[in-house]
Amino acid sequence: KQIRKQQKGTWKVQASTMAKNTHNPIRKIVDGMKLTPNPEKAMIALSIGDPTVFKNLPPAVELEEALIETVKGGHHNGYAPSVGYESSRAAVASALTLPEAPLEAKDVILTSGCSGAIDLCISVLANPGQNLLIPRPGFSLYRTLADSLGIECKYYNLLPEQNWEADLKQMESQIDTETAAIVVNNPSNPCGSLFTKEHIKDICDVAFRHKVPIIADEIYAFQVFEGSVYHSFASQTTEVPILSTGGLAKKFVVPGFRLGWITIHDRNGAFEEEVRPGLISLSQRILGPNTIVQGALEKILTKVPQIYFDKIMAHLQANAEVCYKHLSAVPGLNPIKPSGAMYMMIGIDIEHFPGITDDMAFAEMMVTEQSVFCLPGKCFQYPNYFRVVLSVPEEQMVTACQRIKDFCKDHYKGPSENNSTPVK
Amino acid sequence: KQIRKQQKGTWKVQASTMAKNTHNPIRKIVDGMKLTPNPEKAMIALSIGDPTVFKNLPPAVELEEALIETVKGGHHNGYAPSVGYESSRAAVASALTLPEAPLEAKDVILTSGCSGAIDLCISVLANPGQNLLIPRPGFSLYRTLADSLGIECKYYNLLPEQNWEADLKQMESQIDTETAAIVVNNPSNPCGSLFTKEHIKDICDVAFRHKVPIIADEIYAFQVFEGSVYHSFASQTTEVPILSTGGLAKKFVVPGFRLGWITIHDRNGAFEEEVRPGLISLSQRILGPNTIVQGALEKILTKVPQIYFDKIMAHLQANAEVCYKHLSAVPGLNPIKPSGAMYMMIGIDIEHFPGITDDMAFAEMMVTEQSVFCLPGKCFQYPNYFRVVLSVPEEQMVTACQRIKDFCKDHYKGPSENNSTPVK
Ligand SMILES: Cc1ncc(COP(=O)(O)O)c(C=O)c1O
Ligand SMILES: Cc1ncc(COP(=O)(O)O)c(C=O)c1O
Repeated sequence: KQIRKQQKGTWKVQASTMAKNTHNPIRKIVDGMKLTPNPEKAMIALSIGDPTVFKNLPPAVELEEALIETVKGGHHNGYAPSVGYESSRAAVASALTLPEAPLEAKDVILTSGCSGAIDLCISVLANPGQNLLIPRPGFSLYRTLADSLGIECKYYNLLPEQNWEADLKQMESQIDTETAAIVVNNPSNPCGSLFTKEHIKDICDVAFRHKVPIIADEIYAFQVFEGSVYHSFASQTTEVPILSTGGLAKKFVVPGFRLGWITIHDRNGAFEEEVRPGLISLSQRILGPNTIVQGALEKILTKVPQIYFDKIMAHLQANAEVCYKHLSAVPGLNPIKPSGAMYMMIGIDIEHFPGITDDMAFAEMMVTEQSVFCLPGKCFQYPNYFRVVLSVPEEQMVTACQRIKDFCKDHYKGPSENNSTPVK
Repeated sequence: KQIRKQQKGTWKVQASTMAKNTHNPIRKIVDGMKLTPNPEKAMIALSIGDPTVFKNLPPAVELEEALIETVKGGHHNGYAPSVGYESSRAAVASALTLPEAPLEAKDVILTSGCSGAIDLCISVLANPGQNLLIPRPGFSLYRTLADSLGIECKYYNLLPEQNWEADLKQMESQIDTETAAIVVNNPSNPCGSLFTKEHIKDICDVAFRHKVPIIADEIYAFQVFEGSVYHSFASQTTEVPILSTGGLAKKFVVPGFRLGWITIHDRNGAFEEEVRPGLISLSQRILGPNTIVQGALEKILTKVPQIYFDKIMAHLQANAEVCYKHLSAVPGLNPIKPSGAMYMMIGIDIEHFPGITDDMAFAEMMVTEQSVFCLPGKCFQYPNYFRVVLSVPEEQMVTACQRIKDFCKDHYKGPSENNSTPVK
C-alpha cells in the first residue's frame, strides 16, 4: 500500500489511493468524446438512464401525495435507525416476500439508492485482494465500487445470441478461491434482457457448487414486457445465500429520491453470523436514506395502482418494438430484442463501416451528423455495440431510428462492393 | 491483509475486514448497559442527540412549504449530479461565503448527511496506515469511519478547565509524517463548547507548521448562545487548506433528511490537483443526497427567518443555564458551562461516590434509581463525565436536574466522613 508522505515544501495535499481508484467510466468516456450535434437537427439523447429526463413519465400522484402527507405529518424529521424505520423495512418485506423466498422486516436494509445497496453488499462480502464476478456487458458501478475498495473484478460473458444469458462454463472457469461473490443483474442494464427461471437455476447451481454467494441487482424487478415473467434469484434457490438489491429509482421513476434496499435471503444461516451484522455495522457509516421518503414508503409501495406501471411498461415495450423493427432492417446493425428494463443493445458490423474504427467513433459521428447520441458499448465493457434508452417519447424514438438508419445508409459498405442494396 | 477463503464444508459466509472493523461505540456501550428505569418515575432520556425526539422543536413552516412545493413542482425527481444540483450548491455557497473565506458553487459538495460529508473528507485525505488527529472527548463517528477504512486515530486532548480548548502542545506532539488531517469539531459534541478566534488561529498555526490539512466539522455552526460569536475555521486562516462539513440536521432540526455538505476552502491550490477531483470521484459511489431536499435547499437556507433559530438557541441556552445552576451546586458534580451546540458535559468526582466504579456504573444507577439516562463519558472516550442533551422541554430539564441532585445526595460521600453537609 502506497503511503502518502506530507510534502513539506509547496503545500500540495495528495488524495488517497481510494479516491484515485474511484472512477466513473461512463463519465470518463463521454467527457472524452467530441459531441458536437448537427446544428440542423435537434439533439436526441438516447444515452441517459434517467427515466425522468423527457418529462413523459411523471411519478404517480399517489407517490406525490404520500410524500406530502409525510412532510405535513411531521413525524419523520428525526433520525431513523441506520437500517431504516422498522415499518418501512416491513413495507419492503411485504411487497417482495414470496412463499419460496420469505422476507421479514429484519431482512431488509434501507440504503441511499440502489447504488448504496450495492456498495454495502460488495463492502460486506469482499476484502481487498479478493475478486467479484461481474457481467460483461454490464452496469459500470460494480467495477467502480470494486476498484474503489481494492477488490478485483473478473468478467463473465453474456451471450447476445442467447438473449444475453450468461456463458455458464466461462463463468464457472472464472471462479477461484478468492471469489467473494457473483454479481448478477436481472433484468439487465444495458441489455434489457430477462433471465428465464431455468437460467437463474443454472447460475445458482454454479454458485452452489463453489459456495459463492450471489449479489442480485434487481433494481429493474418486475419491469418486464407483456408475455414475459420476472423471477427473482432468491425464488429459484433454497441453497444459495443471496443479497438482492433494489429501490424506487426505476419502477417509480424517482431516481433522485435515493431510496434503495437490500433484501437478505439467508440460507441455512450462511449469512447469520457475520454478513447480517456486518451489513448493520456498515449502514451506520452514513445513517441510511432520507426519512421523508422512508415515511412515505409503505404508501408508495401499496397505493400506486398497477395501471401506473402497466402504462410505463407498455410505453417501453412500444419503443422497443419500434426500435427493433426499424433497426433490424438496417444493414450493418444487429439489435438484440429486449424483454424488460429500459434499454436495448445494438450490435454494429463495424467492418462494414469503413472509416469508422469502433463503437466510440460510430457514436461520435452519429452525434455530428444526425444529432443522435447513444452510449457506445465500451461504457459497458462491450465494444462494437451501442445502447439505446427506451424511455424517450415515441415520436423521438421514431425520429431517432430514422436518423440512425440514414446514418448507416451513408456509411455502410456491404460485403460485396457491387451489392448496391445490401441484404442482411 | 487477512484474505477470506471460501469454506467448502458448511456454508458460512464471512464478512469483510471492513465490516468487522466498523463499530458504533455508542450503540455498543449502550446495548451493554443495564437500563431498567425506576417504575415509579417516568423515564427522561437526556441521551439522544436528535433534537426532534421531544417534539418541542418542530421544523420551520418555511422549510415544510419549500419541501411541499418541490414535491409538487415535479422537477426534482431525476438524478442530480453526484455532487448536487449546481443551484443547490450555489445556495450553500452563498449562505456560507465570507469575504475572508469565499465560496462558490464549485466549492460545495452535497452529501448524504454530515456523516456522509465526514466520510468523504476522511476517505479523500487518508490512506490505510495513515493517521488522523481527533478530539477527546469527541464525536464517535470520526473513529468509526477511520477504523472502517483502516486509518489510525490519534487523540488530542480538550481541556475542561479551559472551556474545552485543545491542548496545543499535546496536539502538536501527536503529529507525525503519517498524519493525514486534523479533525476539529466546533461547536462541539459532546462539550457544547465554542472556540475563540484566537484558539482557532492557534490550531491553524499547528496545522500550518506541519502542513497538515484540517477537517472542520462545523455541523453546529452558528448554534451559539447569546453573547458568544461563532467563527468558522476557514475564516481564521489564509494558509491552511480546510474541508468544512455541515448540513441541515441540527440547525434546521431535520437530521432524518440526510442533507449534508462539504465546503472546500482551498489555499494556494493545495487541494486543486488531487483533493477536489478526488472528492468528486468519491461522490459518484452513491450519487449524492435526496433531490427533493436539494430542490428545496435554496428556499430552506434563505426563507427560514432568524427568529426560528433564535428561539431554538434561547431554549437551549435556558436549559443550559438551568442545568448548570442546579448541577454546579451538587457536591460531586462539575458541570462545564457550554456556549453552543446542544450538549453539556458534567464531571463526576467518582472517588466520592463509593460503590460507583465509573461513569458507566453512574449512568446505569441513575437510570435504575431516578429514570434519568445520560450518556457516560466513555461514549466520547472521556471517562468520569456524563453528557446531557439540552434540547429537552424545560420542565423535563428541571425534573431531571432535581433527580440527578437526589441521586448524588444519596451516594455522595464528602472528603471527610464527619462533614455532613459537604461543601464543594
Ligand atoms: C443495473 C443498475 N443497478 C443500480 C442502479 C443504481 O440505482 P440507484 O439510482 O437507485 O442508485 C442502476 C441505475 O442506472 C442500474 O442500472
Ligand atoms: C459533531 C457531529 N458531526 C456530525 C454529525 C452527523 O450529522 P448528520 O446527522 O448530518 O450525519 C453529528 C450528529 O450528531 C455530530 O454531533
